[in-house]
Amino acid sequence: MRVEIWSDIACPWCYIGKARFEKGLAAFAHRDDVEVVHRSFELDPGRAKGDTAPVLEMLAKKYGRTPDEARAMEAHVASNAHSEGLGYRTEGRDHGNTFDIHRLLHLAKARGRQGELLDLAYRANFAEERSVFDTDTLVALGVEAGLDETEVRAVLADETAYADDVRQDEREAAELGADGVPFFVLDRRYGVSGGRPAEVFTQALEQAWKGRALQPLGTGTDVDAETCGPDGCEVPGA
Amino acid sequence: MRVEIWSDIACPWCYIGKARFEKGLAAFAHRDDVEVVHRSFELDPGRAKGDTAPVLEMLAKKYGRTPDEARAMEAHVASNAHSEGLGYRTEGRDHGNTFDIHRLLHLAKARGRQGELLDLAYRANFAEERSVFDTDTLVALGVEAGLDETEVRAVLADETAYADDVRQDEREAAELGADGVPFFVLDRRYGVSGGRPAEVFTQALEQAWKGRALQPLGTGTDVDAETCGPDGCEVPGA
Repeated sequence: MRVEIWSDIACPWCYIGKARFEKGLAAFAHRDDVEVVHRSFELDPGRAKGDTAPVLEMLAKKYGRTPDEARAMEAHVASNAHSEGLGYRTEGRDHGNTFDIHRLLHLAKARGRQGELLDLAYRANFAEERSVFDTDTLVALGVEAGLDETEVRAVLADETAYADDVRQDEREAAELGADGVPFFVLDRRYGVSGGRPAEVFTQALEQAWKGRALQPLGTGTDVDAETCGPDGCEVPGA
Repeated sequence: MRVEIWSDIACPWCYIGKARFEKGLAAFAHRDDVEVVHRSFELDPGRAKGDTAPVLEMLAKKYGRTPDEARAMEAHVASNAHSEGLGYRTEGRDHGNTFDIHRLLHLAKARGRQGELLDLAYRANFAEERSVFDTDTLVALGVEAGLDETEVRAVLADETAYADDVRQDEREAAELGADGVPFFVLDRRYGVSGGRPAEVFTQALEQAWKGRALQPLGTGTDVDAETCGPDGCEVPGA
């Protein structure tokens, strides 16, 4: 079974939802038969590269919240993160364009290090408040994840590298009806939206597992017609 | 959308069903969004490599048919092939173990030449009655398909090369409930068994296309809860 998770590094519910999903997955009997794939989704694709702003200020400005409301929202999210055992600092975090880190996550996927880079990037952004919008930090994270520094720098310097992979993920998210993240897709058949409690994920995995049976189409009356098997070929009327 | 087709080169309904599927696909509006993948299935995996027998004799011996009955079965299949514009010779064709050609098809997949090799192998076996159980013929087919001769020979000489890929395909066929081929799986959601008329495939493709919508799980009452989107993060009660 395959679970694809659309998310953004800048998305706190993705950070928290990933931990809850993993807890839900650990409680699922067939967890060893589940392949998890990260998919790209940008919360703020229209923001120029390098244009960063403190999160609290951005929340206040973009969504018309007072500074106190923005701080209360962050505190609420932080308490959810802490409940999952995740670090979350509510001050000093920057918001920005995440296209480069998504490109880097696709390089990491090609090199078998995507899970490592994803965890490091989330922790850097939310727990350590290192800026994931800064090239030197991205290079350091890539190297920590086990990637080759020269290759990481080359990908970051070439804006077309893995750009199509990011855009393709985003097109698929739109086709699947996802307008927010995290968005979990099980076998391209079931969708779970949001950083739900772990039990929701366990239940969704169980339902998707049961639902794996194929629906037969075009069978008519003779389901063996015009097939060959170990016992020979079915020939109508023979 | 992805269509996986389990088949065997030794299977006449696979040869005919592939042509019917392609005709059905050509009539499907979203044909350019369909990716087709070949999957391995052996009709006679227990037969030793190199142990070949004339098809008519095998049909008579294995399934207890008289020579006339075997000939009538082949004639029926041949008339179906001819209706699809495919060559089909009913005499002189050999039956045997197809493990090596499936391994070679996986090499061809890795080199982007699987479709070419598949068509050449079917034609060799059914229309030209070249023995696809013979190493020199397999090498010639591989080269005709655009593969490197040295690499083809190396794969054929090493019985472990791509063997896991063939076995993995066969395990998945069993998991999906396929005990005969051709077996068509659309988006791992719908199954069509047998070399059905082209219209059946067009209809199945249309139904699978409509059925692509995800079934939401675990939504509860607030479907936007604990997600982030371009308009910010949903915070319960905020």
